[in-house]
Amino acid sequence: MKPSFISLDWGTSSLRAVLVSEEGAIIEARSAPGGVMAVKDRQFQASLYAICSDWIENCGCPIVASGMIGSRQGWVEAPYLDCPATPATAAQALTTLRISERVDMHIVPGLRCGSKTTMYDVMRGEETQIWGADVSPDSVCVLPGTHSKWVFVDEHLRIKRFATYLTGELYGLLTKHGILGRLMEFGDSDREAFARGATLGLKHSAQASHVLFAARTAALMGEVHPAGLPDYLSGILIGVEVASALAAENVSGDQRIILIGDDDLCCRYEEVLQLAGLKSDRAADGATVQGHVRVAREAGILACESA
Amino acid sequence: MKPSFISLDWGTSSLRAVLVSEEGAIIEARSAPGGVMAVKDRQFQASLYAICSDWIENCGCPIVASGMIGSRQGWVEAPYLDCPATPATAAQALTTLRISERVDMHIVPGLRCGSKTTMYDVMRGEETQIWGADVSPDSVCVLPGTHSKWVFVDEHLRIKRFATYLTGELYGLLTKHGILGRLMEFGDSDREAFARGATLGLKHSAQASHVLFAARTAALMGEVHPAGLPDYLSGILIGVEVASALAAENVSGDQRIILIGDDDLCCRYEEVLQLAGLKSDRAADGATVQGHVRVAREAGILACESA
Repeated sequence: MKPSFISLDWGTSSLRAVLVSEEGAIIEARSAPGGVMAVKDRQFQASLYAICSDWIENCGCPIVASGMIGSRQGWVEAPYLDCPATPATAAQALTTLRISERVDMHIVPGLRCGSKTTMYDVMRGEETQIWGADVSPDSVCVLPGTHSKWVFVDEHLRIKRFATYLTGELYGLLTKHGILGRLMEFGDSDREAFARGATLGLKHSAQASHVLFAARTAALMGEVHPAGLPDYLSGILIGVEVASALAAENVSGDQRIILIGDDDLCCRYEEVLQLAGLKSDRAADGATVQGHVRVAREAGILACESA
Repeated sequence: MKPSFISLDWGTSSLRAVLVSEEGAIIEARSAPGGVMAVKDRQFQASLYAICSDWIENCGCPIVASGMIGSRQGWVEAPYLDCPATPATAAQALTTLRISERVDMHIVPGLRCGSKTTMYDVMRGEETQIWGADVSPDSVCVLPGTHSKWVFVDEHLRIKRFATYLTGELYGLLTKHGILGRLMEFGDSDREAFARGATLGLKHSAQASHVLFAARTAALMGEVHPAGLPDYLSGILIGVEVASALAAENVSGDQRIILIGDDDLCCRYEEVLQLAGLKSDRAADGATVQGHVRVAREAGILACESA
């Protein structure tokens, strides 16, 4: 297979590089822990060369990148693209950086929705995953993580709007630095405690900053064992997110939710969605690379499939 | 004035000792940073003697204490008293510890409400503040803090029930350890940013873990200056708390809210309550000591006023 471009999924905590063929297939994949936050003194070029200097020098292929690499803390700030957005509108809004005499890096813009009078929301990288995930028209995509995203795709497969939930960040802060974490023991997962937390969170989502306190009182009253507390809190937080999002977005019971992301997290969301009476499907792996292929085709970096 | 008992307000982060006269008046007050969390190797007696060994040895007065000192991490665990609760029921449920040949320390029980099937809620120390704050029947008391409390007092001045909101803890975690804090500059307060955040939080309280993200996007879009972000987030969090509590508890517009606590925090809550269309009053200072006086009278530690 002849290499055509390098796909970079360069997020906050990791860097994944994939050499992609002219047919859009994966020739080779590599990854490194060198996320944007781990790059010191803005040595982005060195981090990139450390993972794939051979590809850059030998093939001279262009690079298509997405994720936090295009943020203010990244290599170069790629302005946000407003919703509704598609691979075609993104292809017209690439931020291009010449990284060597022969090689350009094209950064896919992150997306923005909302307004000054309501609130803005932003994402970087998730838009590419959705474009590569082969979702159906009129889908609701959920991408769990530090900052979970609920993304609404319309009948023309455009990303219409989305909403971020701080679920993963709150879990990390509360367990690592918070008072709730003091009573916790970390180890094996406890599915029963998770389901109990999720049921509570789903029920009291309108009182998020109150219901979180159950992770303290349930421990004080001996209702949840210290080893079950981390999953109990995880359940509460995901329950709160799911019920809040369903209420705010008017998601109906017959709409299928598409989960995109890490396996363990997707399992948790699957379970909570089920408790809320909703069905969900998992997107195929490798969505980011396929998203880059779609944007690269629209931008003419990669020849069209029919060509 | 003749000393009659020592009032101890012994919380997580500070210890306040007051020598109280037979008439219930303050003879002398002292404070130390030696909160329960600062006491090493369970040296509670040494911490207590460091602040008032002279009172203990010279007067031989009993001690009445409340706060986290009665928690599992405190000196001795004082079992929770279930709601509805009054100074009289608390006086019958004191946990007494002999600390010297002549001196007993009586710990006021914390309160518990809720149930296994809903969720439990607990407090330690706030009950004593409320009993000393001279509140009117059928009041709603709000005690802002790390774990804010909304406390409902019935027509017989009993504490009927209450709810905890993690507002202060979330603010601390998000600003000190979270991603939102990275864009912030800390310094003078910014009342306009606070009011904007509060308006947003009040409006979107049912989506707490989403609306918090506005403290990131407003910064990214240049809507709020880095120096205004801490107050913007503070406004969002207090707005979320106030609107959630009002919705959950059916608080009507003609009900007055009584604010008890730290001056700066009470000002913030006053403003947010006003934005929500509610009036509030401040409780007088020194509520804890007066609460101890009431419990001590009911327990016969201090003679009744009429005696």
